[in-house]
Amino acid sequence: MSQTVSLNPVAAWERYQRHLFVCDRLGLSLDISRMAFGEDFFASMAERMSKAFDDMEALEAGAIANPDEQRRVGHYWLRTPQLAPEPELTQAIRAMQEQVRAFAAGVHHGAVRPERAERFTHLLVVGIGGSALGPQLIADALGSTADALRVEFLDNTDPDGFDRVLARLGPALASTLTVVISKSGGTKETRNGMHEVRAAYQAQGLRFGAHAAAITGDGSELHGVATAGRWLAIFPMWDWVGGRTSVMSAVGLLPAALQGLDVEGLLEGARIMDAQTRLREVAANPAALLALMWFHATDGRGSKDMVVLPYKDRLLLFSRYLQQLVMESLGKERNLKGEVVHQGLSVYGNKGSTDQHAYVQQLRDGVPNFFATFIEVLADRQVEGETPFEVEPGITSGDYLQGFLLGTRQALAESGRESMTLTLSDAGARSLGALIALYERAVGLYASLVGINAYHQPGVEAGKKAAARVLELQLRLVEALRARTEPVTAEALAVAIGAREEAETAFKVLLHLASNPGRGVQMQGRPTPTEALFLPA
Amino acid sequence: MSQTVSLNPVAAWERYQRHLFVCDRLGLSLDISRMAFGEDFFASMAERMSKAFDDMEALEAGAIANPDEQRRVGHYWLRTPQLAPEPELTQAIRAMQEQVRAFAAGVHHGAVRPERAERFTHLLVVGIGGSALGPQLIADALGSTADALRVEFLDNTDPDGFDRVLARLGPALASTLTVVISKSGGTKETRNGMHEVRAAYQAQGLRFGAHAAAITGDGSELHGVATAGRWLAIFPMWDWVGGRTSVMSAVGLLPAALQGLDVEGLLEGARIMDAQTRLREVAANPAALLALMWFHATDGRGSKDMVVLPYKDRLLLFSRYLQQLVMESLGKERNLKGEVVHQGLSVYGNKGSTDQHAYVQQLRDGVPNFFATFIEVLADRQVEGETPFEVEPGITSGDYLQGFLLGTRQALAESGRESMTLTLSDAGARSLGALIALYERAVGLYASLVGINAYHQPGVEAGKKAAARVLELQLRLVEALRARTEPVTAEALAVAIGAREEAETAFKVLLHLASNPGRGVQMQGRPTPTEALFLPA
Repeated sequence: MSQTVSLNPVAAWERYQRHLFVCDRLGLSLDISRMAFGEDFFASMAERMSKAFDDMEALEAGAIANPDEQRRVGHYWLRTPQLAPEPELTQAIRAMQEQVRAFAAGVHHGAVRPERAERFTHLLVVGIGGSALGPQLIADALGSTADALRVEFLDNTDPDGFDRVLARLGPALASTLTVVISKSGGTKETRNGMHEVRAAYQAQGLRFGAHAAAITGDGSELHGVATAGRWLAIFPMWDWVGGRTSVMSAVGLLPAALQGLDVEGLLEGARIMDAQTRLREVAANPAALLALMWFHATDGRGSKDMVVLPYKDRLLLFSRYLQQLVMESLGKERNLKGEVVHQGLSVYGNKGSTDQHAYVQQLRDGVPNFFATFIEVLADRQVEGETPFEVEPGITSGDYLQGFLLGTRQALAESGRESMTLTLSDAGARSLGALIALYERAVGLYASLVGINAYHQPGVEAGKKAAARVLELQLRLVEALRARTEPVTAEALAVAIGAREEAETAFKVLLHLASNPGRGVQMQGRPTPTEALFLPA
Repeated sequence: MSQTVSLNPVAAWERYQRHLFVCDRLGLSLDISRMAFGEDFFASMAERMSKAFDDMEALEAGAIANPDEQRRVGHYWLRTPQLAPEPELTQAIRAMQEQVRAFAAGVHHGAVRPERAERFTHLLVVGIGGSALGPQLIADALGSTADALRVEFLDNTDPDGFDRVLARLGPALASTLTVVISKSGGTKETRNGMHEVRAAYQAQGLRFGAHAAAITGDGSELHGVATAGRWLAIFPMWDWVGGRTSVMSAVGLLPAALQGLDVEGLLEGARIMDAQTRLREVAANPAALLALMWFHATDGRGSKDMVVLPYKDRLLLFSRYLQQLVMESLGKERNLKGEVVHQGLSVYGNKGSTDQHAYVQQLRDGVPNFFATFIEVLADRQVEGETPFEVEPGITSGDYLQGFLLGTRQALAESGRESMTLTLSDAGARSLGALIALYERAVGLYASLVGINAYHQPGVEAGKKAAARVLELQLRLVEALRARTEPVTAEALAVAIGAREEAETAFKVLLHLASNPGRGVQMQGRPTPTEALFLPA
């Protein structure tokens, strides 16, 4: 199915022209000419691709596209509400958008204001995974010093991480609006962040609820907290929007609107891309082209990594965003028939040309275990001066940026490494919306090509359950230790509470507690399993 | 050589205890018990490992460890100057350290001050690759709101990226110290950044040299610019320090010292780790253990990716730092005998538990193409309150962080995915220095195990040369276009200047120029190779 891309420049140019996809409306193009698919590849995939389009049509029409969780998959409706399968959904999406607009306007105009300041000046978003990475991407890609609110994120359960962000906010916490995002409303990292932030407000004598808004599912734990605490607002999340595709729901729109970014442009870019990627003509559908290239490059089983290199500082987080979207969607043990397949597609990358100085050495010379996706942005600056700033006669910094991209693309081709190039007219809101929508659709189509459910994440439960067992063990260990007068090894303490099989976890938990003041545990001896002795502090 | 790690908890605990490496002095431990190496593995590797230790001893003694470039490799001397093979080198390192200390003290006390402000308040570091990622890691891992100077970085040649950072600095540019870092002194991205920053100072009526310091090799282009421009200071770089291992030279020390961070702690941590990782007893040498585990997990040929998950916000950049250190060092076409081997080891990761919500789904269920390295930090907060902040009775945010780490480690083991766990007492300067030194040594030892030169990067030249050809073509195209009165296709213009074979590059270059005002190129028609017509603007 594969061949080698010709290095003959005339043949390469001919292949480039033949396969280039161009979307005039978005100013976006996709070049697949440096992928070494054979002449018969598209024909050989036609039947599978047709099935993928069928699946996608059914999904958009409201079928249960996530069978394991018996859920519909509606992120495409978010930018074209009239496509939602029931008028109630259309109405709910429009109402959410209107609620976002009105709330953001209220914040900007001062109608929604903090307890002890004229205006909100800062925004603190508390969320993780799908409830953080989308807003982070938008904030970084579209933000500027002119933003209406300055934005910070808590996206973990690291106490020191909380402290750092709260220290950066400092007294500005009094004019900070905190948005807590959790679809299920029970995500522990987010709940912990919320508790710590609430304490910080209270330490400044402020009522948390007067500075907080929630985005969560109806009836969730967080919904209850926000209602009882008389928070400023609660925005909806629905079970038909997955976390990793929630960026065009309130999850992404509310922070963006509060930051003063071009929410309409984002939705419009996605909407235009959605229309383009519904076309069943593969050559006119960049999402189908991407999905097919992934299939070609990885034999439809993730046999190679996807390296994503946006040559634009603003798009640094896009590769990390894709890492989540692609890996969580495609990394599955079983296919839809229930067979064990261990699917997936590993994604990494930061930005060019910076990454050229980090690992292009390996990409060009080393283990050939990847294909690359270059992202090119044609507009160099958002605001141009009267005359372009030249670093050499006739040459700008932006010419170098493009030169390095084209040079690396060429160097990879010369050493037989495949690449694609996505070109955007600019890195504005429309382009970003289009980019997100393009990859959402590509992931969905690829999942159909390889026969998996792209919309669930059964594998994350095991780790969460094991974590809960660790915390439960911790409580029992501390209680048992409290009654001790003699130092004890972790293993002996575990045995004493009937948890012999958890001696290792006990050792690690006690070491952690002993490393932090005020936790009731102290340690004597070397920090090894046999030598460390624990006693009450 | 491989086996399955037993899921029997008692057997796992026994294996944990048998293989745990603990360094009391650093408060660091390495757990390899969840790597599925067989009982005979270490013995089978003993001969190779012995050779690797020999190579490392020769390297530290001043042998030409980078034969392709005929260079010595001296980054270990930077923290133990008396080990350098000649007294002149010892003296040069000490002088550099003293120069860094004195300059930073001068800046902090105001003896070194900007033209039109009392004190420097901000630091702008201009560099890329090895001249940026190390300083960025240190700044992010150790920085706080109490830093002496606030630091920003220019690490690319993205014009919009420059604009964003300069906009953030705004009027504070007048009290900003700019440090330009380029070992060769000719790195284009860095030179471009320097030009743009100089223009920004000049636009505020400030003399750039009065706000600038350089770190570069003696006699480099940058050295000449800094001398002619009467910059505040020039710090040395030496050809025996590679960019990706330069963080303990002035490259990392100067920004850290200016920021007011614990430079001595960083060096001390590295020094202690260096001593530990010189030991030829594998079980007592964590770098040897790491190198052997990489060999085990990837069959000594990079057959699996290394996923790095530090459970600490401050260490977010460490995985990206390792990506550079490991991939640029190990991603090589040929071994030392000149045979084509396509070596390498792909690295990616951000931070836990955040990444659990991004791609642990794939790690647990999907394509088994990786091994994981967890990094655990025992101290939860840098400053603890009187009583720990609890998110549930008896449970802190930090307990959750550890719980998620242990839970994910367990979940991966259950699905047969291998992992290691590095535990640090804290995320302070000593720990960071030790971590960097640990991986530097592991990379060096692993390179010996697989027989490659870890200290050159021949593969990056091809891309740079191809980029230079793109820029040269651009100048010729613009000149040829200027003489035209009729619109012309990119291909026709390429043919006209005798560059038929570069028609594709010509199209892309002209599209870029036409997308930016003031570049002398405008476009008519659709942006496709055959329809786009270019004419002088």
